[in-house]
Amino acid sequence: MKNIILLGSGNVATHLGIALKNSNFAILQVYSKSIKNAKALAKKLDTHFTNDLTKLKSADLIIVSVNDDAISSVLSQVKNTAIVHTSGSVRLNVFKEKFSNYGVFYPLQTFNKEVDLNISDIPFCIEGNSLEFENQLIKIAKTLSNNVVKMNSQQRKKLHIAAVFACNFSNHMYSLADELLEKNDIDFKILLPLIKNTITNLEKNKPKEVQTGPAKRNDKDIIQEHIDTIKEKEIRELYQKISANIMKFHE
Amino acid sequence: MKNIILLGSGNVATHLGIALKNSNFAILQVYSKSIKNAKALAKKLDTHFTNDLTKLKSADLIIVSVNDDAISSVLSQVKNTAIVHTSGSVRLNVFKEKFSNYGVFYPLQTFNKEVDLNISDIPFCIEGNSLEFENQLIKIAKTLSNNVVKMNSQQRKKLHIAAVFACNFSNHMYSLADELLEKNDIDFKILLPLIKNTITNLEKNKPKEVQTGPAKRNDKDIIQEHIDTIKEKEIRELYQKISANIMKFHE
Repeated sequence: MKNIILLGSGNVATHLGIALKNSNFAILQVYSKSIKNAKALAKKLDTHFTNDLTKLKSADLIIVSVNDDAISSVLSQVKNTAIVHTSGSVRLNVFKEKFSNYGVFYPLQTFNKEVDLNISDIPFCIEGNSLEFENQLIKIAKTLSNNVVKMNSQQRKKLHIAAVFACNFSNHMYSLADELLEKNDIDFKILLPLIKNTITNLEKNKPKEVQTGPAKRNDKDIIQEHIDTIKEKEIRELYQKISANIMKFHE
Repeated sequence: MKNIILLGSGNVATHLGIALKNSNFAILQVYSKSIKNAKALAKKLDTHFTNDLTKLKSADLIIVSVNDDAISSVLSQVKNTAIVHTSGSVRLNVFKEKFSNYGVFYPLQTFNKEVDLNISDIPFCIEGNSLEFENQLIKIAKTLSNNVVKMNSQQRKKLHIAAVFACNFSNHMYSLADELLEKNDIDFKILLPLIKNTITNLEKNKPKEVQTGPAKRNDKDIIQEHIDTIKEKEIRELYQKISANIMKFHE
């Protein structure tokens, strides 16, 4: 499995392509529906490009890193080849009708084309339609990362929801904090030591064990004072909902 | 301002006492309503202790680090001395009736007696009833920390609410993620690289600018699929509320 074709030219395709090339895989070709994007990534990887799925070369493995909602239509135009997608949300059996060897090769990370990442720390979640193919995928993933995990589609979906809470929702909590501080001329960066300390606590403890704050202490006076102080209706409602949820969770 | 008395024997009093002693302040005495706790902290600081507020020695500064709801009753038994409290929530004017020099000396950190902390990174928020006293407090804080900020009571209250969002609520998001993963035999630690990456993004960007996820993308199919997948009613409701709030916030 040395000759690989990448379908897609976004953040995942870019980081994966560079990492695979650095691990001595041959990237034969890059496809994107936008010829400009295909060309840009092909240039980075020093390889061929196309915007026509009927013109794919023959390869050991095709990696599909297009948007989730484009996967089905892309697959309908691809011949039977060993194939994986890189999505956290799309089930393994999206490949079922047409392909003999198929799997999921999901890097658990928010990629950004502009930011260099140390891919060796990123967890890769692997699933294959056969034990043999799964082991081949695990072998490839292990050349890229020290953190490779077998995971079925059901687990991967739960992991994706958990990541929404742990990353997207926690980031939104930072946004709301920033919103409150900005209106009072306080720099958000004052919170960074406290935020980092919260994360450091997670290295050795379960998050539930290190929960602090008024809701955890069941300090109804402070909670009421905070609710009375928050002027923005939406933020106030979230404060109430999440505080109530913490109290219930720690009953 | 070299001779200091500590009222309280909890996490803040302990860390502050040790840091002040290391910066060559003299801790004259420790008070706690529990004689056992007073003795334990006094032993660490090699000083005197009492559980009787009428027996306080005379000092340059009293630091009140008792629970928020005990501050008023403690103050009612203390003679007029230069005095500060260390609370994020209690207003400066709690001292107003009785004291001539008073202020707030608030370290923005969740302390834990058992865990060593590098106090020099912790932001200290300072407020004094006069410019002169405020400057004296700032001088003391600067011997402990590189991050000293003047902040009035109104700002401090907003900062405290922001810290609830950024630390307590984000930690609860981790708890919910852990809950979802545990039920599916997935180790929460798989999320740590992604969580750390979220924090790294905050060093150079506003949290709103680095928001990702289905709600940010307005991806209603995935959001609905997640809602259908989450079995726990409370967690499902939070997922809906926070997603709706993110969509509104990024309109």
